[in-house]
Amino acid sequence: MRIAVDAMGGDKAPQEIVKGSVLAAQQVPDAEIILVGDENRIKHELCLGGTIPKNITIHHAAQIVGMEDPATHSIRQKINSSITQSVELVAKRKADAIVSAGHTGATVAAAMLHMKTLKGIRRPGIAISLPTLHGSCLIIDAGANISCKPLHLYQYGIMASTVCKHLMNIENPKVGLLNIGEEDAKGNDLVRETFSLLSNAHLNFIGNIESREIFDGKADVVVCEGFVGNVILKFAEGMAKNLLTTIKAESMNRFWAKLGLLLCKPVFQSIKTKMDFAEYGGVPLLGINGICIICHGRSDARTIQNAIKAALKLTKTEINEYIISELEKSNTLTAEVA
Amino acid sequence: MRIAVDAMGGDKAPQEIVKGSVLAAQQVPDAEIILVGDENRIKHELCLGGTIPKNITIHHAAQIVGMEDPATHSIRQKINSSITQSVELVAKRKADAIVSAGHTGATVAAAMLHMKTLKGIRRPGIAISLPTLHGSCLIIDAGANISCKPLHLYQYGIMASTVCKHLMNIENPKVGLLNIGEEDAKGNDLVRETFSLLSNAHLNFIGNIESREIFDGKADVVVCEGFVGNVILKFAEGMAKNLLTTIKAESMNRFWAKLGLLLCKPVFQSIKTKMDFAEYGGVPLLGINGICIICHGRSDARTIQNAIKAALKLTKTEINEYIISELEKSNTLTAEVA
Repeated sequence: MRIAVDAMGGDKAPQEIVKGSVLAAQQVPDAEIILVGDENRIKHELCLGGTIPKNITIHHAAQIVGMEDPATHSIRQKINSSITQSVELVAKRKADAIVSAGHTGATVAAAMLHMKTLKGIRRPGIAISLPTLHGSCLIIDAGANISCKPLHLYQYGIMASTVCKHLMNIENPKVGLLNIGEEDAKGNDLVRETFSLLSNAHLNFIGNIESREIFDGKADVVVCEGFVGNVILKFAEGMAKNLLTTIKAESMNRFWAKLGLLLCKPVFQSIKTKMDFAEYGGVPLLGINGICIICHGRSDARTIQNAIKAALKLTKTEINEYIISELEKSNTLTAEVA
Repeated sequence: MRIAVDAMGGDKAPQEIVKGSVLAAQQVPDAEIILVGDENRIKHELCLGGTIPKNITIHHAAQIVGMEDPATHSIRQKINSSITQSVELVAKRKADAIVSAGHTGATVAAAMLHMKTLKGIRRPGIAISLPTLHGSCLIIDAGANISCKPLHLYQYGIMASTVCKHLMNIENPKVGLLNIGEEDAKGNDLVRETFSLLSNAHLNFIGNIESREIFDGKADVVVCEGFVGNVILKFAEGMAKNLLTTIKAESMNRFWAKLGLLLCKPVFQSIKTKMDFAEYGGVPLLGINGICIICHGRSDARTIQNAIKAALKLTKTEINEYIISELEKSNTLTAEVA
């Protein structure tokens, strides 16, 4: 298995990306890791780390897509960027998967352009697992697509349900549509039209779900447009941090609570780990003809290490074949709406 | 001061609405509370409560807008609904403010139709204060308007900034635009066009703000469209509950943590109160020519009591005059975009 890693993508690139790749290479010696980016800078980082694992190679890419670059434009202009070069390695079958913590929009655009989408899929979507009281909930889309159409959301429901069924062993995944009310007539045009599509799908569609219910285990999959999905996931991150800091700050003013906090430390540690995106590594961009793992822009070595392991695990499954098969069952509907 | 209370609106109506109104009437004897709704049912609830305060009267309204009713349609069809009748009392100057925990969309539509918007305002918006590490952050819109245009969001920024300045004594409120990235070019068409409008406004516009930063005190006002605002506020509610339950559940399995939790009880109680919407009562619908307080559908007596007190407090301010004055400063721009 060969994983192309975008060494220049992310706030802490290339340092943390290279470090994480070395850790993964040491842990999984039969995997081949191709670091894509500025050869000199990558070599420099590798040397700093000491012995370079034999299963790490470098693929030179002179350009970098900056966070301020517009996605589509940069992909067309910067054909030698680390993102485009990484994606091309997979497209040309010189790698089996790509991992990137760089510009999400650019990675999605490059993957669509070079790797192409799966047959019938209009737009790829990012699926992120949110820890809840009863396990987890898969939110799709977390920011790959901010110009969603009802058909895109409908296909997100099918893709995420397939992931739940085949990778998470949930027999008949409950799919909910994120809305601002439970009633069928609630919401804007996008969600109302999506509601009607999902109602007719080969899915265990449970209807609208309000954001406060996500944590109740009501749905295994929650479908929403990329802007909203991105906002709630980053909000969850900020709120978890805020709540834990508030608990700490409020305890510091009270003698007994201060002691109580000390005794509760293992509990907070466990919750922090659950809410820590670095533990999860990257998340898959579903709907792409290949395996593409998207990481948080603030990824550190541990995130990248886990993301590479996630990519390796995913290449061993037949998730894309399962998605195509589930999509075919709904082909009539897709053709009607298109 | 006369407050029209929609007695039939909300999941716990009329019981909790009547109870809350009685509590408020007892607490503020010089206020007059007009309970609007089915006279017999209201009378029945009032009798159950014992002595009826003299400052409570009933205004009969035979119809109820159900949660499943489409907003605009129900307002045109059900002219004798408790929502429409309450709003009309204010429009006809028979009341100074309205409080409703009923169908938000219908209340907004009725207020626009009968009370009208302030001069120049295109759409009213709901402003909700979210508790953060450094105080609070005013989120606008929380669900009044799910078909937002850039001009609506621009006006939301002006209105919420005015509230911060004149009601919360924040000298030069920092106004942020909720987006999925900090860079100017990020986001969908709506936020990109709004960004350019806000950049030219008479505001302390700090640019895009990501949802994880809301809790950091980076902005006093966060502008977003109603669908997104509604989703994040309900998400915050669900997540706070989920986190506190998880802490409790995880502590129960550990002897020392269980004791620690007991010692931390006052801390959790204080946080719970901060995150409890019932404490806040209702929130103002800004941009309406009058005072309109919107309450959570699940409001109980305490929420209604606090909402009535909020309505009384707001009628004593000149918030709408301040909003009009701030809007006038930006009239040229509004005219250009319109």
